[in-house]
Amino acid sequence: MSTTPDTPTGSKPNPTIIEAPEGTPFLDITRDFDAAPAQVFRAYTEPKLVARWLGPRDLEMDIEEYDARPGGRYRYVHHGGHLGEVRAGFRGVFHTVEADRLIIQTFEFEGVPNEVKLDICRFSEVDGKTRVTTRSVFPSMEAREGALASGMKHGIQDSMERLTELLAEGV
Amino acid sequence: MSTTPDTPTGSKPNPTIIEAPEGTPFLDITRDFDAAPAQVFRAYTEPKLVARWLGPRDLEMDIEEYDARPGGRYRYVHHGGHLGEVRAGFRGVFHTVEADRLIIQTFEFEGVPNEVKLDICRFSEVDGKTRVTTRSVFPSMEAREGALASGMKHGIQDSMERLTELLAEGV
Repeated sequence: MSTTPDTPTGSKPNPTIIEAPEGTPFLDITRDFDAAPAQVFRAYTEPKLVARWLGPRDLEMDIEEYDARPGGRYRYVHHGGHLGEVRAGFRGVFHTVEADRLIIQTFEFEGVPNEVKLDICRFSEVDGKTRVTTRSVFPSMEAREGALASGMKHGIQDSMERLTELLAEGV
Repeated sequence: MSTTPDTPTGSKPNPTIIEAPEGTPFLDITRDFDAAPAQVFRAYTEPKLVARWLGPRDLEMDIEEYDARPGGRYRYVHHGGHLGEVRAGFRGVFHTVEADRLIIQTFEFEGVPNEVKLDICRFSEVDGKTRVTTRSVFPSMEAREGALASGMKHGIQDSMERLTELLAEGV
């Protein structure tokens, strides 16, 4: 487990808790945001907003498709920054999209084709904040270890910081 | 692990191997069929064929939608037989559908809403037969145990027998 404060200087930070229970293919992320569930949910589902926070800070994100409804597909490409000339594509489909409450979607990094995980993302109100808990279910123990070894935690921390900043703008 | 021969009397049976590794949320099924990969793949993707083998033998299956392509959705209802008045609905989306090789899809039993698993189904030719290996990835250890306790193995065994019979008809 790692806990890192990630809000801008001066504000009271909400920690991002990342847990990778030993011997399981799960990765659990818990994070509170100082915003209403509807606002956070919107940042997770509207492509223009998603492009502003999802991924490491140094990368750019081109969204080709982001159709957040059951049966909808998404595909986006990260590029620039530490990727150099590499264009990293990601794709998946939405199984469940329940406004302000729940998103269940598949996720595939095209650099490791056919290794698909399932992401279950729950939104709930806790003490006037919105708590987002995400369980990633990998298709094998090795797949989770590979993702962690590739620097996934850094991407998660950056994403949560960037989302906090976006929400602070009142979008 | 349980191994049960399941072909009609007189023919050499191919066993259905079901493995539920301790301490994991995985359920692995391996089964060979005396048919070409293209034929088996067709039985997994054409709704009229799927309705003839998927599920326990005593049930009827109504397919509402079965759109086996990336981003396609499916929903079907099992009824009759041991279910009595109950109508059991199942739904999901296809992430990957690669002809004769691979299907990756989500799966939800509507009786346990929002408990979604991922099914990864690989087709390969082994010694002139088609081997189908399916890994089901449950969202928790408890979810897998619940599914096993509900009699899932019986449904799998019946399905594999029925599919063998269907393929023997040369469909």
